[in-house]
Amino acid sequence: MTTATSLYPLSTRAAALRSSDVRELLKAAQRADVISLAGGLPAAELFDAEGLRAATRAALETPAAALQYGLTEGQPALRAALEARERSHGIALAGRSLLVTTGSQQALDIVARLLLDEGDVVVVQRPSYLAALQTFALAGAQCVGLEEDEDGARVEDLETLAFARKPKLIYLVTPFANPSGASLSLRRRQWLLDWAARHQVLVLEDDPYGVLRTEGEAPPSLMALAQDVPGAAAWCGRTSTLSKAVAPGLRLGWLLLPQALAEAAARVKQALDLHTSSFAQEVAAQYLAGDRLEAHLQRVRGAYRERRRALCEALHAAFGDALVFSEPEGGMFVWARFTDGTDTRVLLPRALAAGMAYVPGDAFYADAAPRDRLRLSFTTEPPARLREGVARLHAAWQATRGA
Amino acid sequence: MTTATSLYPLSTRAAALRSSDVRELLKAAQRADVISLAGGLPAAELFDAEGLRAATRAALETPAAALQYGLTEGQPALRAALEARERSHGIALAGRSLLVTTGSQQALDIVARLLLDEGDVVVVQRPSYLAALQTFALAGAQCVGLEEDEDGARVEDLETLAFARKPKLIYLVTPFANPSGASLSLRRRQWLLDWAARHQVLVLEDDPYGVLRTEGEAPPSLMALAQDVPGAAAWCGRTSTLSKAVAPGLRLGWLLLPQALAEAAARVKQALDLHTSSFAQEVAAQYLAGDRLEAHLQRVRGAYRERRRALCEALHAAFGDALVFSEPEGGMFVWARFTDGTDTRVLLPRALAAGMAYVPGDAFYADAAPRDRLRLSFTTEPPARLREGVARLHAAWQATRGA
Repeated sequence: MTTATSLYPLSTRAAALRSSDVRELLKAAQRADVISLAGGLPAAELFDAEGLRAATRAALETPAAALQYGLTEGQPALRAALEARERSHGIALAGRSLLVTTGSQQALDIVARLLLDEGDVVVVQRPSYLAALQTFALAGAQCVGLEEDEDGARVEDLETLAFARKPKLIYLVTPFANPSGASLSLRRRQWLLDWAARHQVLVLEDDPYGVLRTEGEAPPSLMALAQDVPGAAAWCGRTSTLSKAVAPGLRLGWLLLPQALAEAAARVKQALDLHTSSFAQEVAAQYLAGDRLEAHLQRVRGAYRERRRALCEALHAAFGDALVFSEPEGGMFVWARFTDGTDTRVLLPRALAAGMAYVPGDAFYADAAPRDRLRLSFTTEPPARLREGVARLHAAWQATRGA
Repeated sequence: MTTATSLYPLSTRAAALRSSDVRELLKAAQRADVISLAGGLPAAELFDAEGLRAATRAALETPAAALQYGLTEGQPALRAALEARERSHGIALAGRSLLVTTGSQQALDIVARLLLDEGDVVVVQRPSYLAALQTFALAGAQCVGLEEDEDGARVEDLETLAFARKPKLIYLVTPFANPSGASLSLRRRQWLLDWAARHQVLVLEDDPYGVLRTEGEAPPSLMALAQDVPGAAAWCGRTSTLSKAVAPGLRLGWLLLPQALAEAAARVKQALDLHTSSFAQEVAAQYLAGDRLEAHLQRVRGAYRERRRALCEALHAAFGDALVFSEPEGGMFVWARFTDGTDTRVLLPRALAAGMAYVPGDAFYADAAPRDRLRLSFTTEPPARLREGVARLHAAWQATRGA
């Protein structure tokens, strides 16, 4: 078959984008008989379709707002609602501006294009959210990874890492990182903000999962903390999304930046897609103006907590010491490591044959990756199916050991 | 005030993006007492809100499709509906693939990032759709303009223009170009496809306005013609949008590319926003599956024709030979030139003071621009207001001549 790279003169950056081989492997996970713990999706049966139906009816009462071209920065009603949510979490809006984005994925692309020239350095956590690495690569950047432990990314390593160039951007998923589930500790948050202010490097905090916390207390966001660290407010950006709180299909995220940077970001966004769907924005604004969100979130968090507990208990019971992991206080994923040297890439076809799927850990590394990790999502399957999925994984694992 | 460029290390390309000064000037056009012929918006009072309300109800009956994450290529139902529309206009889908985009603006960004490296050459028409120039600039490209006449862009000049590098892309709005309203003639379409095939340069046809044709017969699209020009099918891409046919607020466009290129385009799009709103896509798919679109388009075309006639007659009556223009057979704009040397940039503040707005023609040129042109939109105002707008323009023009 003809490939684009052989026939067409692709840009250097586009030619370097590779289709993930994991994606190919996991096509089998879509079979009806496979229990998939490989996805990164919220539970569709918990969507508040009734609430969104009412919100849509309300939004379409003003067709000129919901259906016409809108402002690049976002629909005023949605911006106000999102700003109010951020304020309620201790974030001051003075000197900052909020831009509605087509999912938080677009927020990453906007920041990348705003800041990055060919060869610029972006600091990420390791392992990493893969689509972020793709976006930074498409902007021509090199990513340098900070190892993670239980307190999140080891930001102190910024002092000792040898960078080819001074970093332009530090990108971290701060609560419940994907895939590791680790959250950045309060002490590290403060240390990082002080470092960023002194070195004048933008820190972009990505917070898709904070809304899915079921236990423990959340530390203040980087952006809330930045107000108390001299000079840090000017070097802190933040992105989040309605994908986990309301529904991914709306494709609504937002980007909070210091005012001067936000204005330049809006010029970039205009060249990307003019603006995000005003229809989706007006529906979301109506939904947030109603009184259903908190009850909906309680329901989602309750279900996810029950599912996560079921998964973790089944993993403990089946694998004992052969599999280690920390049960996170929220998010969507359990990140586990085999202590017996099991290669999760080798195990995957056997797990698929046994009727379950996961993502092998090496998929989350741009460079030399450990082969003994796996990511398990607990959000889309009920407890009984999660337990059955673990039983199938265990059977596949035992067969590998026997082989 | 602090600007981003002084405080932050913006990327070279983002730092070069300028906010349009026309945009600043035209803020006054939003005053209620101003009759604005400056916009590029469809008429909001003609949106089929009732039809979209029914489509939304239907879409939300399957929340898992409308609200969940979707495929990067687009929702299957919408892709099928758009493919059927394209097929009905003589476009064969074999060997091609359709990607749903977040408006056709994103289609331009995807193609730019797919093909363009720093310093690459893109051929555009002159004058040009400004947001396209911004997108190509953000990809690091240099734009070279083909002059236009009544038959559209003078593509034959491709033979004689001296390019710094062989062009990577030829981008043309083929029917009813913005701002000129000119449509590329059949003879030039065939010539261009032959040239593109021989030189192996991708031609991207942008067709947002073809659906707004009210008179005359449309020549086949470049993509339909490419099937009959040896080698051309592999070098022809096409983008269009539902913004003019249904509603811009949905932010739904599409990109048709040769298969191998479409696969690479999907990898690029994934890094940009994962996928376009599945909610908007499912609503649009339901709307297109219904029987309302053709009647809606008849209504829109009828209104636009009446408005365009009113505007053109009023311009003729008021200005006579002092203003020349061709009345287009569709689209949204009249592009006019003063024959008395009137500088439309100088005239604009006076027109605004008199209570009307237009876009001065020099806004549509990246380089040395003629100063005697203006673009007038006829879509958003009823005939009486268009006539009053022309009267105000005439008063402002006479005052300038008296000054």
